[in-house]
Amino acid sequence: MDHLTPREFAAQGREVLDWIAAYWERVEDLPVLSRAKPGEIRGRLPREAPERGEPFDAVLRDLDEVVLPGVTHWQSPSFFAFFPSNLSGSSVLGELLSAGLGVQGMLWATSPACTEIETHVLDWMADLVGLPARFRSDGAGGGVIQDTASSATLTALLAARERATGFESNRVGVRAPLTAYGSEESHSSLLKAVRIAGLGSDNLRSIQAHPATRAALPDAFERLVEEDLAAGRLPAFVSVTLGTTSTGAFDPLRRIAEIARRRGLWVHVDAAMSGAAFLCPEFRHLQEGAELADSWCFNPHKWMFTNFDCDCFWVADRSALIRTLSVTPEYLRNRASESGEVFDYRDWQIPLGRRFRALKLWLVLRHYGAEGLRRHIREHVALGQEFLALVEAEPDFEVLAPAPLNHVTFRYRPKGAADPDALNMRLLHALNESGALYLTHTRVPAGIGLRMVVAQTQTTREHVLAAWRRIRDTARSA
Amino acid sequence: MDHLTPREFAAQGREVLDWIAAYWERVEDLPVLSRAKPGEIRGRLPREAPERGEPFDAVLRDLDEVVLPGVTHWQSPSFFAFFPSNLSGSSVLGELLSAGLGVQGMLWATSPACTEIETHVLDWMADLVGLPARFRSDGAGGGVIQDTASSATLTALLAARERATGFESNRVGVRAPLTAYGSEESHSSLLKAVRIAGLGSDNLRSIQAHPATRAALPDAFERLVEEDLAAGRLPAFVSVTLGTTSTGAFDPLRRIAEIARRRGLWVHVDAAMSGAAFLCPEFRHLQEGAELADSWCFNPHKWMFTNFDCDCFWVADRSALIRTLSVTPEYLRNRASESGEVFDYRDWQIPLGRRFRALKLWLVLRHYGAEGLRRHIREHVALGQEFLALVEAEPDFEVLAPAPLNHVTFRYRPKGAADPDALNMRLLHALNESGALYLTHTRVPAGIGLRMVVAQTQTTREHVLAAWRRIRDTARSA
Repeated sequence: MDHLTPREFAAQGREVLDWIAAYWERVEDLPVLSRAKPGEIRGRLPREAPERGEPFDAVLRDLDEVVLPGVTHWQSPSFFAFFPSNLSGSSVLGELLSAGLGVQGMLWATSPACTEIETHVLDWMADLVGLPARFRSDGAGGGVIQDTASSATLTALLAARERATGFESNRVGVRAPLTAYGSEESHSSLLKAVRIAGLGSDNLRSIQAHPATRAALPDAFERLVEEDLAAGRLPAFVSVTLGTTSTGAFDPLRRIAEIARRRGLWVHVDAAMSGAAFLCPEFRHLQEGAELADSWCFNPHKWMFTNFDCDCFWVADRSALIRTLSVTPEYLRNRASESGEVFDYRDWQIPLGRRFRALKLWLVLRHYGAEGLRRHIREHVALGQEFLALVEAEPDFEVLAPAPLNHVTFRYRPKGAADPDALNMRLLHALNESGALYLTHTRVPAGIGLRMVVAQTQTTREHVLAAWRRIRDTARSA
Repeated sequence: MDHLTPREFAAQGREVLDWIAAYWERVEDLPVLSRAKPGEIRGRLPREAPERGEPFDAVLRDLDEVVLPGVTHWQSPSFFAFFPSNLSGSSVLGELLSAGLGVQGMLWATSPACTEIETHVLDWMADLVGLPARFRSDGAGGGVIQDTASSATLTALLAARERATGFESNRVGVRAPLTAYGSEESHSSLLKAVRIAGLGSDNLRSIQAHPATRAALPDAFERLVEEDLAAGRLPAFVSVTLGTTSTGAFDPLRRIAEIARRRGLWVHVDAAMSGAAFLCPEFRHLQEGAELADSWCFNPHKWMFTNFDCDCFWVADRSALIRTLSVTPEYLRNRASESGEVFDYRDWQIPLGRRFRALKLWLVLRHYGAEGLRRHIREHVALGQEFLALVEAEPDFEVLAPAPLNHVTFRYRPKGAADPDALNMRLLHALNESGALYLTHTRVPAGIGLRMVVAQTQTTREHVLAAWRRIRDTARSA
């Protein structure tokens, strides 16, 4: 088949838009967790790749017949699992524009608008979420879009590794006895980053979390650092989580950062989901101490109506990052880079190539305006708080961790229940198999907890109340 | 502003489709390399983020007035720089569908179709480009989509690092004296990966390339390995490039892989752009020895009409990869993963989250069919060969490296020219400033060369001939 002409593309595109719009309209009626069995979707695909092109109708039909049965509906208003990946029509159109322009943003010169709009929008975002001026590009800092918070953590760890070793590890390898720190509730990407960066998991210290709040204990952190220093090791990096994946706990940023900075550690803040809450001034007490961080990330692709991938990552000292990641072969040299007047974002990330992801963030900010975003975030927090109150009101349910925003961790625990973990896992599976909603679980000191995260674009009070009724009734009828 | 309704989204989407279609129709009339000055694009943006939402018309207007002047047109038919990032209407619609579905593919369970279609399409692709069966998922291997070849190289290096140290480096850090190897013409991402993975650039050996062909010399590789072994070091990884960025050189895969496998090194093949050529059996002599590789990558987002990002990455032994990258906290545990019957692609890549990128590759394969893709690749190779013949025919031009496919490295070298490097850099800047085409340069032993890569979707014979006339006439009129 020949290339689609631009007009053929636009015509087929209309069918795709209509398909997506219809999907969004009916998504709440589909079972949230896919019921496909392993191998079932593959079994519907032809064994061999097509030798000849097929008409577009065949593809559209397969979206309904092959793809949808294998989709877990992250855009369902009854998706309360993991962390959300909410999106909006505006962000999807930004993604479409980015794909259609098809530019590479690896260097400023390979598309100045891709770099400059990104730098500018990240300055906007830093202001909007109340970050200190040191993260803005008009000082020594600046922001960049990473694919995920995992990549942001790895990038920050690499810069920390190099800063701690006078930029020698890049050359000689990881020879220094470097150590890194994070709450026992840190995201798994911290462990993965420590392995990738060559530090080794033996050199990642797990900071004890408070048994009830699940926030990292500063005194425990300080003891770990002192033990390592006494043993001749080189503490280099601490990750502070604002809104843990497990229960939505907030580490005490200021106290940890003060300890870390006295010893020269790099302080990275992972606010992957909850960072969006800081659009609202009334929640910023949870990020108190932000001016002490060296790097910061949060994901508009979680809770800010921007489709995946879009992680905002800021550093206070961009020179450390650039020195860590810059490699310049002859074929990438160009006048603009050599002028020193521009950012080349390939030096701010792991891969070389990069898409024009700032477009979707720009479109989201322009569509909603800051006030629109704040309003939707507040609605989600209010719904989270309403759900929390409903759980608290029932004597056979138990809240397992503080829930200041939209993430509630709880379990069913009727009097005399012998094995609450097994009971709650059965409850979880029964709920998810119903297709009416999707929740995931975690483990806290008391045992297994169910996690309710209210953050989908289409979620309303009715969805949250229906979820609660189903949880309560399913639990009690088992 | 409130969320767009699905219908509002579809209506605005039509405007975006029409804008993109019109952009593709006029892109050949725009100056290929952006003429923006540093800061010029930012200067057109408001200082503060919008407090209130704006109508979509304002955004559409800014696409023309703010964005386009800052775009270097990678989709221009006269873009011959770097490596291409070609795309097609079909792939852009796949990207749009992926964005609209908004699923996360980190686990099989988080959307079985996302994983299974990816596994299946990568089996198709392995067959289509003539890779051995060991890379297919029905044996011990399998494929996955990475964002870029940089990430594929890093991922392969990490698996090699762990395999060479009995999976101990993940735990204790990089303590073993590991060494890695690649041609002096290897892509810069190899050096970056060696730094990130904690080996250190001192432990990356640069294999001498043949002065004329720029292909890695197997004897030189063998000597480096023997020296390292004699010194008690642990050779772990070699990257073989099929189609270097500088001149499109092909390393002798079989000879290097034979040496490497005798010593237990992991053999990674980086065929980022040229791997697409192997859709055509007549070019597969350039990948002879593929059955000896441990991992392989090529980028449909370069030369297979699939918009960025889409790197196909295969491993022969997926267990080494998974063991290297798997980290499972409680909140990611699920029945399907524990059954062992499914792939969880988060264990095949650096980040945790991932989009449904297989959709666009699936749409491209179904639109063109294998025969359509082969036809377009052959057209580009034929145009590359025609350009090569034109350069060779002129006594004041010189071809600087073998050009078996679509990438020609050459320079202007009239008799008696004093400083050919300065002359060719002036020629390059004059050409790019004309706006009529975009070329980039490289350095070979003889000096600076200009690179002509013919691979854009809309490029026809007329564009290549016009480029050649302009190059020749500009050179001679200086």
